[in-house]
Amino acid sequence: VTDSSASPAVIDLLGVLAYGELSAFDRLSADAALAPSMADRVALSAMATAEFGHFERLSQRLRDLGVEPEAAMAPFVATFDDFHASTTPADWWESLVKAYVGDGIGADFYREVAALLDPQTRDLVLEVCADAGHSAFAVDRIRAAIAADPQVAGRLALWGRRLVGEMLSQAQRVAADRDALTALLIGGMDGQAGMMDLAELGALFARLTDNHAARMRALGLAA
Amino acid sequence: VTDSSASPAVIDLLGVLAYGELSAFDRLSADAALAPSMADRVALSAMATAEFGHFERLSQRLRDLGVEPEAAMAPFVATFDDFHASTTPADWWESLVKAYVGDGIGADFYREVAALLDPQTRDLVLEVCADAGHSAFAVDRIRAAIAADPQVAGRLALWGRRLVGEMLSQAQRVAADRDALTALLIGGMDGQAGMMDLAELGALFARLTDNHAARMRALGLAA
Repeated sequence: VTDSSASPAVIDLLGVLAYGELSAFDRLSADAALAPSMADRVALSAMATAEFGHFERLSQRLRDLGVEPEAAMAPFVATFDDFHASTTPADWWESLVKAYVGDGIGADFYREVAALLDPQTRDLVLEVCADAGHSAFAVDRIRAAIAADPQVAGRLALWGRRLVGEMLSQAQRVAADRDALTALLIGGMDGQAGMMDLAELGALFARLTDNHAARMRALGLAA
Repeated sequence: VTDSSASPAVIDLLGVLAYGELSAFDRLSADAALAPSMADRVALSAMATAEFGHFERLSQRLRDLGVEPEAAMAPFVATFDDFHASTTPADWWESLVKAYVGDGIGADFYREVAALLDPQTRDLVLEVCADAGHSAFAVDRIRAAIAADPQVAGRLALWGRRLVGEMLSQAQRVAADRDALTALLIGGMDGQAGMMDLAELGALFARLTDNHAARMRALGLAA
């Protein structure tokens, strides 16, 4: 690990994280309107607020590095907006699955990347990816919904698979567009060796997939 | 001023304030999608987040007084939901005028009531009603919009008058429904003298109206 704090790859990583948090704020605050109770509405609004707090921390770090957050986020706006437009939840349960499964895969991936970076960036990424109670809330609510109506499980399992498919499709688009970020992981763009060889990259995807399957099981859903 | 901290009127006041903040969070986070730029979107999202922080402070105070926030808010949910449903902004400028004019009148009113209460409630109300930069932001953006297209001013002036009309209508509904809150101001419900006589109540409305007219002038709009 070297001091990579102002490298193009780190700017990209902070930018993609920042816009991800800002769009998570949008999504969660909008989905709060779907909540079946005041308590659920408050819980989702609190999560939205926490995501905005993360966005502000990441924006501040970018400014500290001399980069305008808006410029760093710009390359990733279409990716997230397209993802959210193509995966608008039809109801409260789909919004909870999306929050849990989507944030889970994202956080796993960012944590893996963070391990390759300078300590200050790593600590910030770990902080904004920490689970602030989202998971326990989503698991509790979705298990209760399935217990009340077992047919819900089939529909939500399909929804979970569709979310992963859409995320992979957007991730491929980012990987194709953002050389610095891709090179950080698999190297080779500027002649430098990447952080991971192909076997390590395969192992990373296996870990992400395993964790996703574990989350779906926690929800009571087939992965 | 006596220790009124757990009186029905104070519970009502904290309840109406708390639900007002929660619905302001909803409104501002949704209106952020109308923003013409990323900077404006971030600014409105930050305001929404600040409103949610106020909601949490008021909820905690209610719990400290042994009252469930949900129960305290319940009598006011329909009032705010109807107000927001009947005043959905058609565009970004209407949302800014609504945030500025609506929050301004609300904050003026709550501050007047707070002056009649125990110090702890008063300090909390003053804290959540403090202007966290909303006003300067709205004034700056709306004046710029009018400078660019003077015809905007007529439409937004009409919009401001409509907002005040809808707010007065909802306030009358609350006054008719919530005896304790009304008695706090004008007294008489339980044989006690109220805090204000009719002349003082008239002066209160004159102050609210004057402040509203000053806000409209600050926007460059006819009141």
